[in-house]
Amino acid sequence: MGLDSSKRVAVEDLTQLCVEVFTRVGMSPADARTVAAGLVTTDTWGTFSHGTNLLPHYVTSIRAGGIDAGAQPEVVVEGPSWAILDGHAAMGMVSGCRAMDLAISKARTTTLSWVGVCNSNHFGAAGYYAVLATHHEMIGVALSNVDPNMAVPGARGSVIGNNPLAYAVPHRADFPVFLDIATSAVAASKIMTSKSLGQDLPGDYLADSEGLPTRKIGTWPVGSSLMPMAGHKGYGLAFLIEVLAAALTGAGMLSTARSWILSPHEQGKLGHCFLVFNIGNMMPIELFKQRMSELGREIHEAAKARGSDRIYLPGEMECERRAEALRNGIEFPEWVKAGLRGVARNFQIAPCPGLE
Amino acid sequence: MGLDSSKRVAVEDLTQLCVEVFTRVGMSPADARTVAAGLVTTDTWGTFSHGTNLLPHYVTSIRAGGIDAGAQPEVVVEGPSWAILDGHAAMGMVSGCRAMDLAISKARTTTLSWVGVCNSNHFGAAGYYAVLATHHEMIGVALSNVDPNMAVPGARGSVIGNNPLAYAVPHRADFPVFLDIATSAVAASKIMTSKSLGQDLPGDYLADSEGLPTRKIGTWPVGSSLMPMAGHKGYGLAFLIEVLAAALTGAGMLSTARSWILSPHEQGKLGHCFLVFNIGNMMPIELFKQRMSELGREIHEAAKARGSDRIYLPGEMECERRAEALRNGIEFPEWVKAGLRGVARNFQIAPCPGLE
Repeated sequence: MGLDSSKRVAVEDLTQLCVEVFTRVGMSPADARTVAAGLVTTDTWGTFSHGTNLLPHYVTSIRAGGIDAGAQPEVVVEGPSWAILDGHAAMGMVSGCRAMDLAISKARTTTLSWVGVCNSNHFGAAGYYAVLATHHEMIGVALSNVDPNMAVPGARGSVIGNNPLAYAVPHRADFPVFLDIATSAVAASKIMTSKSLGQDLPGDYLADSEGLPTRKIGTWPVGSSLMPMAGHKGYGLAFLIEVLAAALTGAGMLSTARSWILSPHEQGKLGHCFLVFNIGNMMPIELFKQRMSELGREIHEAAKARGSDRIYLPGEMECERRAEALRNGIEFPEWVKAGLRGVARNFQIAPCPGLE
Repeated sequence: MGLDSSKRVAVEDLTQLCVEVFTRVGMSPADARTVAAGLVTTDTWGTFSHGTNLLPHYVTSIRAGGIDAGAQPEVVVEGPSWAILDGHAAMGMVSGCRAMDLAISKARTTTLSWVGVCNSNHFGAAGYYAVLATHHEMIGVALSNVDPNMAVPGARGSVIGNNPLAYAVPHRADFPVFLDIATSAVAASKIMTSKSLGQDLPGDYLADSEGLPTRKIGTWPVGSSLMPMAGHKGYGLAFLIEVLAAALTGAGMLSTARSWILSPHEQGKLGHCFLVFNIGNMMPIELFKQRMSELGREIHEAAKARGSDRIYLPGEMECERRAEALRNGIEFPEWVKAGLRGVARNFQIAPCPGLE
């Protein structure tokens, strides 16, 4: 395989680095481990845009005051099957994990559960929370609003966030089926990549300063906006997420939600919500998994398109990358390594092997 | 307005025509009214592809044996917050309305509810069921699988259905915010329209016989497949719907689900599911509606794109068309009228005013 382990970063080492940094900026060791687990798991999937690449940004926002590293989320209102937490501006992952854990716990008896969070901040990859439910043989859904960065049909400028949506379904122990998407045509990170390469976009993924579709990146994210995926469909899904994660939780809606990147000193006032289905209360879990296997087999065995030799289920690529990363370490692109080296230097921590 | 009421069809007349036809083919008067209300409401939204345009197809499938006009759906297993119904091959709208009603009733006490249906048939417009929940100040979600008509990344041929997804949120009495979409890049009805006009598609909305994107309609729906919206995103959402509406309900999955158009003599074995959030158990409904108004106002008041003078909320266009149709009748395109005249002739019923 030409595997050069000296260029890879071990999951344990990277986790330790994150825990060290987060405790230095005021987080409890338990919360630091919670956040580190989320970021590092996301890296093992190969979703580098939402993993430890975010570490420097979290540090900036904690130091600037937008994120309160010591805050603890609190249940403000609840029923047997639902709850709303006030995040008190804690790290989004601290509130997010607390909320998903509560949803899982409630679903044991109520079968369905929904837990919302208000006054939160950027929570990393939505898929991380959805997958947590599958560890308990439950289906998980995770939604969040974000500050407006997306056009809607007929508007110029950013009107709504490209609110992410994730789900995960129990399948095999090492492979929950899962999807984690933004409701924009493409993720902002892909546009950032094209921008850094000086390329135009392969499709009309942005709306220009007049609100018209364009392939030109120009000064984005200033002066242009993400286009919703599939036009009115992505707009409509982003709107539903704004309702469930913000209107219903008391979080900041639309322009009241703030960007943690552009305004690290401001609380994000974001809202999240988590929906859980406890399958085992409705049908024997083994029967469900057998049906999932049938579903997966028919898709895997379908005729292949010209030029393709394999069809993946949602999340399958990510789970294979994770298995490989757990065995041999994570192979980061240089831009992630550079950021992590910077943080380590900043805190006078020796960077872990594989980062140099 | 140049309104010519002689060319419009009154909602009451059209409803009566549908009730008459459905009772003639063996449906109880109550079930016939249920189905008629769904189809005619869909027409008032201007969603002609899923309204009474479907009447001849339902008649064909009932006569051929795929739909059992006299069957009654039955609860086969349930808990306080959930249930699964066996549709016994009844009309999809009969089972769908029964299931949504049950979900609304359960959500009164359990706040969240989920009701699934197996052994069902084509249920018309998913949005119709979602909107039913808003009549009780609840948020409704409606999902269904359909027979495979869509490609997935890497495959050639149709692997999964362009499974529809709808939601509705209480807003104003005459205007629930709602969205009803297929998970394909565009609805099949739009491709049918381009095909009848002999035009190519404006985007790569189909996958050809090798599984590669194309704008050519050719022999579709034979020999090519719908493309999922936004590539892997639409595939992933269709997969989630296949899980919730079919894997979890016991319905036919993927190729086990049958097309009611191509195989009217076969039971569709489709699955649906309905999710309800009873807002009033979580926050005062007036506060929620105030937040919905804020959300709506900020979007309405956003700067307009060049060439646009208005921004619509999801479902707003449909609700305005409905208000107009209730006042002045439905103005059908000729292709819908022709189908309705054919059915009326077939049953020796005088077509209602406006259809000639």
